[in-house]
Amino acid sequence: MAAARGRTVLLTGSNRGIGLELAKQLLGAPRPPAWIFATCREPEGPRAQELRDLASKHSNLVLVKLDVEKPSAVRAAVQLVGEKLKGTGLNLLINNAGIYSPTASLHTVGAEDMVQTYMTNAVGPMLVAQAFLPLLKKAAQESPEKGLSCSRAAIINISSILGSIEKTPDSFFKPVISYRCSKAALNMLTKCQALTYGEAGILCVALHPGWVKTDMGSQEADLPVDTSVRGLLSVLPILSEKHSGTLLNWEGKTIPW
Amino acid sequence: MAAARGRTVLLTGSNRGIGLELAKQLLGAPRPPAWIFATCREPEGPRAQELRDLASKHSNLVLVKLDVEKPSAVRAAVQLVGEKLKGTGLNLLINNAGIYSPTASLHTVGAEDMVQTYMTNAVGPMLVAQAFLPLLKKAAQESPEKGLSCSRAAIINISSILGSIEKTPDSFFKPVISYRCSKAALNMLTKCQALTYGEAGILCVALHPGWVKTDMGSQEADLPVDTSVRGLLSVLPILSEKHSGTLLNWEGKTIPW
Repeated sequence: MAAARGRTVLLTGSNRGIGLELAKQLLGAPRPPAWIFATCREPEGPRAQELRDLASKHSNLVLVKLDVEKPSAVRAAVQLVGEKLKGTGLNLLINNAGIYSPTASLHTVGAEDMVQTYMTNAVGPMLVAQAFLPLLKKAAQESPEKGLSCSRAAIINISSILGSIEKTPDSFFKPVISYRCSKAALNMLTKCQALTYGEAGILCVALHPGWVKTDMGSQEADLPVDTSVRGLLSVLPILSEKHSGTLLNWEGKTIPW
Repeated sequence: MAAARGRTVLLTGSNRGIGLELAKQLLGAPRPPAWIFATCREPEGPRAQELRDLASKHSNLVLVKLDVEKPSAVRAAVQLVGEKLKGTGLNLLINNAGIYSPTASLHTVGAEDMVQTYMTNAVGPMLVAQAFLPLLKKAAQESPEKGLSCSRAAIINISSILGSIEKTPDSFFKPVISYRCSKAALNMLTKCQALTYGEAGILCVALHPGWVKTDMGSQEADLPVDTSVRGLLSVLPILSEKHSGTLLNWEGKTIPW
């Protein structure tokens, strides 16, 4: 299993699917992070039972309630994380939370689905990065490393090959219009984040986890979640300046826009 | 001036800037369209005076009230256009309406601007195309032409090079995050429209009008609006299957995603 190089990690959408597996594998790594802040909308709800079980066994896993559509909730989450970090920075923000409307073709998709999916998949990651930027900057400043890396400070946006306009004809048997448009926008956001936050020492990358057997990916998918996440975590340590502002898959291969 | 090849045209955001100039040049073409349906939010408001003046001189220019955020307004617009067309189809839909927040950097942009810009620039064109699809299909079916062309049936989405992720580093002196993300999504939408509507005989293309001296582009811009629009209208007649689902500039050159 790949070593997780971020000393402190914040992970959104961590109560199921890829997010939950990321939390598990980060905890099980040879050098686990000092802190993993695992956020979800309802950490006390029935859908976060497995995450709570994990937290009961690992004192470095902290559940954080985060609903990005509520500015006051975002501020509260930043404060809680800041208190735990006791003046040190946050090395790694993994924006993993996302939604997906499986049947949204151009014949059926409406404004509400388009806007809600955009809000969660593109605007949410933007707001979370804005909110935690001071802690990421602090990590970059504190780091003895030069250049960009996940062990210094990084924003990882979990995107999708379905957001690649170039690759759309290959996968259009699943039109998923609202998802595709939101992920194309997330890819653009990642490029803008790389151009904006790079000089503060923060690496920004979009990662495609593959088509993964989760609630979102369905059981038709071709990749077990543990394989995908092992891949994603093995890509993190190789990332540097040259990858910032790009879209890579779980094997580290570049995907065109 | 290029001949406008669409016999019937619907044009959104037609009361100013590129939209108004498109209406003027289409009317002044050697073979003007039989009908130009020029839509805006408030055709009776003070900001549509020039468009009303134009309509008073050209009986083939019909002002249509269209606010894409109101489904009942969209249905009323479709009905009005359908009545004028008397059972024939609509050849050309030009989705030109758009908004722009000039100062939206990652330091300042918020959720409201992101969502509103996405709604107008990406969701709006999707809804308008969905609404007028039966009339576009009718035009495609009626046409003696084979293959895809603007004189048969086409959706032209006025996009921007600022929506090109690949080209973002070249123009990031203007971060305009909300606009860039919305136009990246519009480019994705255009690809999805091409893949969905192509078999019904409808060409779908995204066009970048250049950086144009308008209220949106400001007077810093490098291109007079008449030059941009002359360019756009000269590109339309050359479009065919091979262009459907691509982004081209006002000179017909392909822009990468």
